[in-house]
Amino acid sequence: MVIRHETFTVATEDRLQFMDLTKRVRDLLQGHKIKQGLIILNSLHTTTALFINEWQEALLHDVQLLLDRLVEQGNGYRHNDPSYSDCDRSNAASHLRSLLLGRQLSVPVVDGEMSLGTFESIIFAELDGPRERQIQLQILAAKEG
Amino acid sequence: MVIRHETFTVATEDRLQFMDLTKRVRDLLQGHKIKQGLIILNSLHTTTALFINEWQEALLHDVQLLLDRLVEQGNGYRHNDPSYSDCDRSNAASHLRSLLLGRQLSVPVVDGEMSLGTFESIIFAELDGPRERQIQLQILAAKEG
Amino acid sequence: MVIRHETFTVATEDRLQFMDLTKRVRDLLQGHKIKQGLIILNSLHTTTALFINEWQEALLHDVQLLLDRLVEQGNGYRHNDPSYSDCDRSNAASHLRSLLLGRQLSVPVVDGEMSLGTFESIIFAELDGPRERQIQLQILAAKEG
Repeated sequence: MVIRHETFTVATEDRLQFMDLTKRVRDLLQGHKIKQGLIILNSLHTTTALFINEWQEALLHDVQLLLDRLVEQGNGYRHNDPSYSDCDRSNAASHLRSLLLGRQLSVPVVDGEMSLGTFESIIFAELDGPRERQIQLQILAAKEG
Repeated sequence: MVIRHETFTVATEDRLQFMDLTKRVRDLLQGHKIKQGLIILNSLHTTTALFINEWQEALLHDVQLLLDRLVEQGNGYRHNDPSYSDCDRSNAASHLRSLLLGRQLSVPVVDGEMSLGTFESIIFAELDGPRERQIQLQILAAKEG
Repeated sequence: MVIRHETFTVATEDRLQFMDLTKRVRDLLQGHKIKQGLIILNSLHTTTALFINEWQEALLHDVQLLLDRLVEQGNGYRHNDPSYSDCDRSNAASHLRSLLLGRQLSVPVVDGEMSLGTFESIIFAELDGPRERQIQLQILAAKEG
């Protein structure tokens, strides 16, 4: 078995921001010349998320709406309260939103291509930006070439 | 390492429907004669989900109740608004429910059997049916036999 | 490819309880002398969860607050109603909370170390304790040593 690792950086510009990573991950995959395997993507942060769904501006607006409804920004969180927490970012909602969306994806590689449905994209969610973020890519493969 | 792929189809009959895929995945696994390995299941759609929990009619009713409460069907979504989106299915809630439940599972295989707890089943959720849906199965194994 | 499995037990003391498993999983990993690989953790229960986030008492209080808000304990669930269900634990909310948080993690191993961000811990959530719970650890690796 072949195992490869690399870490790449994304720079976000807003407090809450979505980025389509599909092309970037595809380009990284092509550098490894893997035919059959599995890609594992992990965001190494507690206030970000990774998910697969349709990349459409209107829908991503609705994802933000859902996050605002389910996890309100200020709502009596202890993580934002200096008497309970030494975190000064007031980002409890960002942590909780990350839990609901998840921070990891596994994408099979078949005949050199990522196995994604027609409308599926790999989407990174910045939930407490702007920041520089590290995403780790692992590839498991039967062999090279 | 041995890597196998196959895609299978499920046909759903309702707008929201749960299907127990445990036996079907077990049957597919047995065709591959794998003793130790990992199964990765991906639904190739943006309005479906895969999760592991108890297969019980009463509980699945409660899952539907939760989805109805957390992600209401019509609620000002831009994805359902023709001035923002060219999708004519009014299925924003289906996308958002998929995000909460997830669309991927990994199930270890130990001594030829899927490693699931006593009350655990592999459950597919159709969130915008009725449709024909494709699920991709990947198997990673040390070797055959 | 090398594949290893082991199952370990955690004993919980409260109805809802979080446990930091990072050190325990790290210790198990070191027993396997794996340099490059992937750890897959599965909780074999339908009323528990596994997630990665910051281990901080204040934040975990907020996670509990979120679960209480999104999935109320008693709320007309059929799984808790003896006319629909033979489960006498009244734990529908525990099942539903498990769905939102997820029950599985995959953690890459790079140069013998788990790939986790600075603030990331592996957290087990007991959602219907106190109980003894089984967690399955699978390791996929290129080779030993």
